[in-house]
Amino acid sequence: MLFHVRMDVTIPHDLPASEAAEIIAKEKAYSQALQSSGKWRHIWRIAGAYANYSVFDVKDNAELHEILSGLPLFKFMRIEVAPLLRHPSSIRDGDG
Amino acid sequence: MLFHVRMDVTIPHDLPASEAAEIIAKEKAYSQALQSSGKWRHIWRIAGAYANYSVFDVKDNAELHEILSGLPLFKFMRIEVAPLLRHPSSIRDGDG
Amino acid sequence: MLFHVRMDVTIPHDLPASEAAEIIAKEKAYSQALQSSGKWRHIWRIAGAYANYSVFDVKDNAELHEILSGLPLFKFMRIEVAPLLRHPSSIRDGDG
Amino acid sequence: MLFHVRMDVTIPHDLPASEAAEIIAKEKAYSQALQSSGKWRHIWRIAGAYANYSVFDVKDNAELHEILSGLPLFKFMRIEVAPLLRHPSSIRDGDG
Amino acid sequence: MLFHVRMDVTIPHDLPASEAAEIIAKEKAYSQALQSSGKWRHIWRIAGAYANYSVFDVKDNAELHEILSGLPLFKFMRIEVAPLLRHPSSIRDGDG
Amino acid sequence: MLFHVRMDVTIPHDLPASEAAEIIAKEKAYSQALQSSGKWRHIWRIAGAYANYSVFDVKDNAELHEILSGLPLFKFMRIEVAPLLRHPSSIRDGDG
Amino acid sequence: MLFHVRMDVTIPHDLPASEAAEIIAKEKAYSQALQSSGKWRHIWRIAGAYANYSVFDVKDNAELHEILSGLPLFKFMRIEVAPLLRHPSSIRDGDG
Amino acid sequence: MLFHVRMDVTIPHDLPASEAAEIIAKEKAYSQALQSSGKWRHIWRIAGAYANYSVFDVKDNAELHEILSGLPLFKFMRIEVAPLLRHPSSIRDGDG
Amino acid sequence: MLFHVRMDVTIPHDLPASEAAEIIAKEKAYSQALQSSGKWRHIWRIAGAYANYSVFDVKDNAELHEILSGLPLFKFMRIEVAPLLRHPSSIRDGDG
Amino acid sequence: MLFHVRMDVTIPHDLPASEAAEIIAKEKAYSQALQSSGKWRHIWRIAGAYANYSVFDVKDNAELHEILSGLPLFKFMRIEVAPLLRHPSSIRDGDG
Repeated sequence: MLFHVRMDVTIPHDLPASEAAEIIAKEKAYSQALQSSGKWRHIWRIAGAYANYSVFDVKDNAELHEILSGLPLFKFMRIEVAPLLRHPSSIRDGDG
Repeated sequence: MLFHVRMDVTIPHDLPASEAAEIIAKEKAYSQALQSSGKWRHIWRIAGAYANYSVFDVKDNAELHEILSGLPLFKFMRIEVAPLLRHPSSIRDGDG
Repeated sequence: MLFHVRMDVTIPHDLPASEAAEIIAKEKAYSQALQSSGKWRHIWRIAGAYANYSVFDVKDNAELHEILSGLPLFKFMRIEVAPLLRHPSSIRDGDG
Repeated sequence: MLFHVRMDVTIPHDLPASEAAEIIAKEKAYSQALQSSGKWRHIWRIAGAYANYSVFDVKDNAELHEILSGLPLFKFMRIEVAPLLRHPSSIRDGDG
Repeated sequence: MLFHVRMDVTIPHDLPASEAAEIIAKEKAYSQALQSSGKWRHIWRIAGAYANYSVFDVKDNAELHEILSGLPLFKFMRIEVAPLLRHPSSIRDGDG
Repeated sequence: MLFHVRMDVTIPHDLPASEAAEIIAKEKAYSQALQSSGKWRHIWRIAGAYANYSVFDVKDNAELHEILSGLPLFKFMRIEVAPLLRHPSSIRDGDG
Repeated sequence: MLFHVRMDVTIPHDLPASEAAEIIAKEKAYSQALQSSGKWRHIWRIAGAYANYSVFDVKDNAELHEILSGLPLFKFMRIEVAPLLRHPSSIRDGDG
Repeated sequence: MLFHVRMDVTIPHDLPASEAAEIIAKEKAYSQALQSSGKWRHIWRIAGAYANYSVFDVKDNAELHEILSGLPLFKFMRIEVAPLLRHPSSIRDGDG
Repeated sequence: MLFHVRMDVTIPHDLPASEAAEIIAKEKAYSQALQSSGKWRHIWRIAGAYANYSVFDVKDNAELHEILSGLPLFKFMRIEVAPLLRHPSSIRDGDG
Repeated sequence: MLFHVRMDVTIPHDLPASEAAEIIAKEKAYSQALQSSGKWRHIWRIAGAYANYSVFDVKDNAELHEILSGLPLFKFMRIEVAPLLRHPSSIRDGDG
């Protein structure tokens, strides 16, 4: 089941740089493991922003929440979620 | 070059049903031709809304505008555009 | 799988009263059939508004959209959807 | 009498982790006691957010406020309240 | 039980003047009957707006909704409702 | 002359508790003195919020500002002001 | 007593041109009479908008409302009102 | 050339009181010098807010910015600017 | 003197196509005449929108308003204006 | 390819002045190097704001993001991006 997610990151300016770097490294590994497993199907950077648009393919809402709330940057993110489904005009395999 | 687009459709309630049906049929054909050509890379329906999230792969901003402004439903749409690029954590081929 | 939905209805003031009455009657029957089937689990009126908060229990996003886009009042509604899951503090059977 | 409540939690990033954990534990106990008593009728997690949708069943506005302002996380919450009533289409016992 | 209500009226410009006048006359009678009964406790005009702030004293949410949805101008109003209670600093009899 | 005022209080979480308590005690005394004088005519708590709706009866705009800017919690408040007048449908003595 | 007012005018595109012209002529005369009397103390056009910022000098809120609700264009306006007072840094005669 | 300006001041609660007092004193002197010169033509306090509406009469946009960005409180202000011109209905000398 | 302007066009769907075409042709001629004169210095289409960003170089606010309010599409536009000046980092001739 | 960008800067008030000055000096050098290269085609200050409107001419979205995310003030900025193209009414060389 597919979900569209936008994540905007705001790291507090008084967070020590080493702490921020460590969280960001964890975030990358976390994201890539989920991409490898096929659950984090797409991720794109939005030009000019510390933000991404992503598409997740998960079993259900609970799995989506488990993934998102487990993001190392979760507490510094504003997240918007929208449930997706196959568009009636879609001709592409795999998009729902 | 990739662009993220959200389209929300509002068809005026006093538009004759036959006219609406004709525009919607044209929209579907228009979308599928662009999907076939590879320019309209993804399209998903947003659950509960007369709306979609799409990803376009075009040569430049001018081509994006030509496609969007040519949508048969263009005058009944609210459209939001965001330029995308490859995310530094992405491991997937083809996402920018 | 549970979804929280808010529906706000705005019927155009120039819609003939008989047409409006017919749509509203269909809406009631449609809602009650889905409540009987267990898919429309809760519906509450919001005081002072032509609006409701509802909770749906559906198989997936596609079924949710099929139900919502099939509402007789769909074209006169503004709809907001949020995917739900069991709250870690919940002690109640049946809430996800 | 039923009320719909949305709670969004934002814990300041510079709150000591132990202090946060203690407040969160108190919050859980507080919530479960009110669920047991029947006053906090429903609580659902919203996917992707540190937030919940809840339904309270209380004697009056004053009792609602006493419960909400007594939440251990109250000072870190943004709360939205809407009074509910039985929907004319509802066929379910217990929803107002 | 007290509720704070703001009502903003927008009468469509193409509504015939006589029809508008009739609705407005009914609205006044309706409001004054409820004021006499004590249920519509306060009503003030907001300077520069076709709007009012009101305070209702009703038995419960259902009675509030019955009153508001029965307003002759209901379909031309935007209504905001907030449940009130006695303020801990209040020294006045009758304000909750 | 009557004014409608909404006050929302946000006390910074790093303000020492004793300092906060002192300001809140001053606020209560300040409010009650103005209620006694008749200038702060109504005050109600809004359920679920650290906020109130109030009605002031003052000589002019300058007196209103003197009262509001003198609130001990003023610097922690977001305040909205609307000038009121007697509603043409009002039957109540004393509401403007 | 001074009030700051912003007025934004939106004339429906299907209003007959002669009717619009008549209302606009009345509006001008109405405004100039109030300027002559000293009650409409300032009026400025906002560049690029069918809108103005104005300052009124009236006896009380009721007189302000009487003036604003009597504007020939009132039903086509969105109006925002803010009560003003003399600024403590002002050195100018007549500004409150 | 005239400009309408709204300034809202938010002084951080952890700024030392003496530092705040010093900036506010400078702000007053700065404002009064510009009022004397005729460039800051009007300033009014907005009731209930730490804010003002002002009208500036300057040579051009650059001079306006030089004045506003030189305000001692500039970094604690949210500022909105609108270019003004003489209103076609104005009968007053000096308002553009 | 430079001004930044954003124009968003919404043509009512029930405007006859020939009338719309005529206005749009006039708009183009009007714009090109002002570009030739140097007053309308830049105009760019915004991808995906019936909108443009423009920069005007005019004598004063009054001339800006005369130009904007004279646009054949003015009554179908939402316009936002911001006064510009030379940026302290600019190295380009002609940008203020 | 052209992009319209608005940048709003908010420097935290507790950032040491020397650190702020250093970042601002770097920002100026960074901007001027990109202006010299032709990639940062226009930059204007917005009157009354610590903000600018800019136009970039870049190869693609990725280059735009590389430039924007490399801004020394990036973490203190709110940035809005819109893709531009030549306007059909434009008569000017070089504007897309």
